[in-house]
Amino acid sequence: MDRLIKKIISMENPTALGLDTDFSYIPKDLCESFGEDGRDFSSITRTIFRYNCLLIDELCDIIPCAKVQIAYYEQYGPHGLTAFAKTVEYAKSKGMYVIADAKRNDIGATATAYANAFLGQTALSDGAEAAYECDSVTINGYLGTDGILPFTKLCGERDKSVFILVKTSNPSSGELQDLILSDGKKVYEHMGDMVARWGNGQMGTYGYSNVGAVVGATYPEQGAILRKRLPSVFFLIPGYGAQGATGKDLTGCFDAKGLGGVVNASRSLLCAYKKHGLPPAQAARKEALLMKEDITSALKQVNKWNI
Amino acid sequence: MDRLIKKIISMENPTALGLDTDFSYIPKDLCESFGEDGRDFSSITRTIFRYNCLLIDELCDIIPCAKVQIAYYEQYGPHGLTAFAKTVEYAKSKGMYVIADAKRNDIGATATAYANAFLGQTALSDGAEAAYECDSVTINGYLGTDGILPFTKLCGERDKSVFILVKTSNPSSGELQDLILSDGKKVYEHMGDMVARWGNGQMGTYGYSNVGAVVGATYPEQGAILRKRLPSVFFLIPGYGAQGATGKDLTGCFDAKGLGGVVNASRSLLCAYKKHGLPPAQAARKEALLMKEDITSALKQVNKWNI
Repeated sequence: MDRLIKKIISMENPTALGLDTDFSYIPKDLCESFGEDGRDFSSITRTIFRYNCLLIDELCDIIPCAKVQIAYYEQYGPHGLTAFAKTVEYAKSKGMYVIADAKRNDIGATATAYANAFLGQTALSDGAEAAYECDSVTINGYLGTDGILPFTKLCGERDKSVFILVKTSNPSSGELQDLILSDGKKVYEHMGDMVARWGNGQMGTYGYSNVGAVVGATYPEQGAILRKRLPSVFFLIPGYGAQGATGKDLTGCFDAKGLGGVVNASRSLLCAYKKHGLPPAQAARKEALLMKEDITSALKQVNKWNI
Repeated sequence: MDRLIKKIISMENPTALGLDTDFSYIPKDLCESFGEDGRDFSSITRTIFRYNCLLIDELCDIIPCAKVQIAYYEQYGPHGLTAFAKTVEYAKSKGMYVIADAKRNDIGATATAYANAFLGQTALSDGAEAAYECDSVTINGYLGTDGILPFTKLCGERDKSVFILVKTSNPSSGELQDLILSDGKKVYEHMGDMVARWGNGQMGTYGYSNVGAVVGATYPEQGAILRKRLPSVFFLIPGYGAQGATGKDLTGCFDAKGLGGVVNASRSLLCAYKKHGLPPAQAARKEALLMKEDITSALKQVNKWNI
């Protein structure tokens, strides 16, 4: 997690570019200028990759992190996964910290296969090779410790991180996560406590472990509760922008130094051209700078901006 | 779910072939006979697909269902997903009901992309195409209703099913799932109740809805509790064989007619050649028949075999 935090500090910008690149987000005239008609998975996924590159090129000097939502690639089959792999590789080549937003989960032996896919290497008859080799991956802790350990093991061995779903940003997240347990804790608090435990022994130089949590910006009250409860857990914070949250909603997720989380925006950056009347990349840059300003000024207002 | 149940009845065998085909399971001499050296992802995934075909050919007349665990394919990148797609297609062409064991989960918009990938079609600039088009997919309900609806919608529209994680088979599944809520229910019971609700309005002719549950065979007591609690929820039951459960452990998951679940075995079938001293496919057939006999005779002993 140190690598991510260092990049955030050096750019003074705790945000992530969410590459949930739905084909419908890409302007038609741009597809045409790429020479693509979008009539098959191959054409669409080439277009998506080129769109991602445009945004990465324009934003990599001001945004430290890319979160690539694999669902938007998986829906195009193996072609989509090729675009995913190339996007991860390109963002890393431009210096971005890359999180695969995959929310994977399974029992131990199978979780090892997923962990290898995103954070490690897969064995060959002779040697091993990385399928994707991201910096980080999101995972789901419903199955408990033995589904998590294969990931956290690789975090320690290969300088990677994970973000485990704790309190998600969607409207129905409370149906399970907000339930109260017999000991008075809420389910999401219990999950948060497990996340803190899974990070024991992997503490970084900024006071945060390699085992982070996903905490939705759309639930500011729960975010603040979790920040106090989990002082060593770094947050990946979705829900900013198109999902409705603004800078002031997420100050509670940050610590007194202005650290503690990275805020993701996807649609508001990918589709910024609709708002700003500029070409997509320049519009995304304008929106990214507004987002940075919105978040850092909100943190300054509550005396939480000292990075 | 009717299509699965109909196949189970006609074969008198409530079991699934788990294609968690790790490359290390495949005998070296067989790889060589395929002309494969396993030195890159392309060679390995071609080998895995051919091994799957061998087993499917040998078992499709006695096992009604294949559960393909996508993690074992994902670890080989896009090559792996090609082998996954071909395996799904081949198993379907041989008449098997195919469950993608993917445990996917995300917020609404993103869940739609996953649902399209496994159960639906993905839009092109003109028309739409299926990425995988399985009969069913496993999903994780930690995010609540709005992450589930995109899948259940396609179940209704396209005659598909889902299996939602309720009580998983792994040792640490109780860390969250067995916790007691303030109303006295356990977390897995609450999840089970949500699953039953999500299936309302999609009831089939055998009294089971299109929205099923994953219930591990390794927890017989909880399986029996859930069968009583969720009379309209069909179970996908992992944990048989290599994970330790036997026929008598899972009788509680079945109803009075001998229906109510499909029992998966993966390693014990994929690696049956280690036990029986036969070539892999014949060994798998021998083991599959033993498994069928073990389960159906256990059901007969408790007067639950009338299919």
